[in-house]
Amino acid sequence: MPHFVTHLESAIDGTQFPSDSVQTLHAGRPLWVRYDLDAVKTNMTKSDVFSRKPTMWRYRELLPIGTDPIEVSLGEGMSPLLSCPELGKQLGLAQLSIKDESQLPTGSFKSRGLSMAITMAKKLGINRVAIPTAGNAGGAMAAYAARAGLESFVFMPEDTPVVNQYEADFFGAKTFRVNGLINDCGKLIREGATEMNWFDLSTLKEPYRIEGKKTMGLELAEQFGWKLPDVILYPTGGGTGLIGMWKAFNELRKMGWLDSATMPRMVSVQSDGCSPISDAFDRGERFAQPHVNAVTKASGLRVPVAVGDFMILDAIRESNGRALSVDETRISDWTRQACSKEGISLCPEAGACVGALQQLREEKWIDENENVVIFNTGALQKYVEVMTSNLITIDLDRPVDWSRLGSTD
Amino acid sequence: MPHFVTHLESAIDGTQFPSDSVQTLHAGRPLWVRYDLDAVKTNMTKSDVFSRKPTMWRYRELLPIGTDPIEVSLGEGMSPLLSCPELGKQLGLAQLSIKDESQLPTGSFKSRGLSMAITMAKKLGINRVAIPTAGNAGGAMAAYAARAGLESFVFMPEDTPVVNQYEADFFGAKTFRVNGLINDCGKLIREGATEMNWFDLSTLKEPYRIEGKKTMGLELAEQFGWKLPDVILYPTGGGTGLIGMWKAFNELRKMGWLDSATMPRMVSVQSDGCSPISDAFDRGERFAQPHVNAVTKASGLRVPVAVGDFMILDAIRESNGRALSVDETRISDWTRQACSKEGISLCPEAGACVGALQQLREEKWIDENENVVIFNTGALQKYVEVMTSNLITIDLDRPVDWSRLGSTD
Repeated sequence: MPHFVTHLESAIDGTQFPSDSVQTLHAGRPLWVRYDLDAVKTNMTKSDVFSRKPTMWRYRELLPIGTDPIEVSLGEGMSPLLSCPELGKQLGLAQLSIKDESQLPTGSFKSRGLSMAITMAKKLGINRVAIPTAGNAGGAMAAYAARAGLESFVFMPEDTPVVNQYEADFFGAKTFRVNGLINDCGKLIREGATEMNWFDLSTLKEPYRIEGKKTMGLELAEQFGWKLPDVILYPTGGGTGLIGMWKAFNELRKMGWLDSATMPRMVSVQSDGCSPISDAFDRGERFAQPHVNAVTKASGLRVPVAVGDFMILDAIRESNGRALSVDETRISDWTRQACSKEGISLCPEAGACVGALQQLREEKWIDENENVVIFNTGALQKYVEVMTSNLITIDLDRPVDWSRLGSTD
Repeated sequence: MPHFVTHLESAIDGTQFPSDSVQTLHAGRPLWVRYDLDAVKTNMTKSDVFSRKPTMWRYRELLPIGTDPIEVSLGEGMSPLLSCPELGKQLGLAQLSIKDESQLPTGSFKSRGLSMAITMAKKLGINRVAIPTAGNAGGAMAAYAARAGLESFVFMPEDTPVVNQYEADFFGAKTFRVNGLINDCGKLIREGATEMNWFDLSTLKEPYRIEGKKTMGLELAEQFGWKLPDVILYPTGGGTGLIGMWKAFNELRKMGWLDSATMPRMVSVQSDGCSPISDAFDRGERFAQPHVNAVTKASGLRVPVAVGDFMILDAIRESNGRALSVDETRISDWTRQACSKEGISLCPEAGACVGALQQLREEKWIDENENVVIFNTGALQKYVEVMTSNLITIDLDRPVDWSRLGSTD
């Protein structure tokens, strides 16, 4: 048997589906990929994992491809877990780390999910794919589609960050700017499906992006020596990563691979400019209301409706976690704070997590000795629009007043 | 002994200097770092290297820090070596790979040299650093200075790519835009040295950036199973990487770590908008003339005067390599070609290498069965100015004409 997937399973009502044919949603909601975890455990040891290349595919038996060497890969995964003593000191934390996903292909964590989704699309015989995006997903999808030799179409709102617009185009996707929002883009893809015969790679509409994002949790466990941190802060747009990590921790627990009894508290972070998950969390509800007039510079957080809302909220509550939203107007400052303290290319979405962490420390919800991880989901360099400038101009035609240059303080 | 450096050695006349104090140029030219390679060999085995984290520091005994755990690190190194079958097919090559440095911290290969230079600056007690830059070096320097807690100053021409301007600022460097060229920026740093008491981190003016860049060669050897490819194409600005790789191959050879007798032919690639090295190569000279009115969109290639010119040219000639320059007006097209064929975030400097490779194949200087590597030195996403757009606009107020969307062909 080349892989260890037993079936797909509706997240909303448990209905089962076969895994070896194309599947999308059931009752409008996502599917889980289920494995024979005993067989995985028999076929993959920790030392197998250690001896493999530093990519997310080192966990292949716990992924839908199993032992079949079919991955569409650009070397994604095993992003560094960087200790952040200076930022930690400012926030009153002795053990703060950032898992730095800015160092993945196309400069964002989207590469994990799309490497996996495109791998499976190709395996299942799909040759044309389409995606709506307001941020990093379009470029990542286009890159992996190019790598796989699939034809790709990307639809994005016209106010999507310019780098995201251009990268999709350069990777060979037919790229469209739409005078609307991301849900308008999604609607176009649904409307064109019959005529254009493309497969819809929207977040969670196919079952495999979660499995790619799951590797963030697998790597974290490995990097913590098969223990887990106490708290994980995750910037939440579509939420695939949070859902995927929680799934990973549960699978590792069932396999007996975890050396600690406790599970991390999962913290979902949004901007108050687009906070459907934290609003639903506060109301004690399992399903989120669409956020009207969503506005945030952190483009990855601008997801007013998440089809996996209940999966996110279930994971947060099971973990005894939190969902909160932070002040949109301060995101740029928090981003700058972390970049300049630790030298990490923090994206504004992760900047929002710094703000959330500050709040949770003030509330004493996180203790100073707890082990805390922030996910940096993308590279600062992709957010030209967010980078407000403190640049100083020097005119060579005038003498330089060195005293004016002063120190950086 | 914590490290295996014996001394520093002038590249121009062999004069020796001690390594445990601050050194810059000698006779206006760079210094080599020399090691006791027998001691390195005794203290580091290939299996040690394999068992360490996937960063450039896995070769620590062959680096100036030795066994001292003092690195200023953001997880740099062990960038993936990606097989490129489709691009290879277009170029008539059976074995083409790209070493993808876009996946390093701050999205460029500059992180290797500056991780090392800042590590050594900190070790030697320096607390304020300055750099002139027209591209990715400023952001990388600022990031590592932030990581090390050093004060940093970045001087750049006002036409430096905007992402490079902003990133240096966000990483906390005091960042200056100058109405001049990179040599004007270098001059400002020299003029301000007394007043400002900063250490000049210009390319090759301190001995350690080469040692950081050297790790590109060490990794390549490891990734090729301690054999080496036949040809390496390297986009050459300051040339530190080409010099460093050649040094790495020679050190590995002396240590007996290489399993093949042949060395790669090193190909230096420039734009015809700034081609001092290829001009000197063509003239058979060891030193380059400054390129007047240097213009290229590939900002990393816009280095009209390289202080290590003779080191670059020596390495090329020793390797039976080539130095060539390609048509500036076609760089963007070659970049797009490689991005869309392989999904790799190619920077325009690496795009120039695709053009050079095409020429060398047409000349039959490279055989179809030779093993060829292109270095992709940075992420496409940092070059907003280069990304000419094929974007298509969709107006939601009009019906979509699906037949007009057609295919991506």
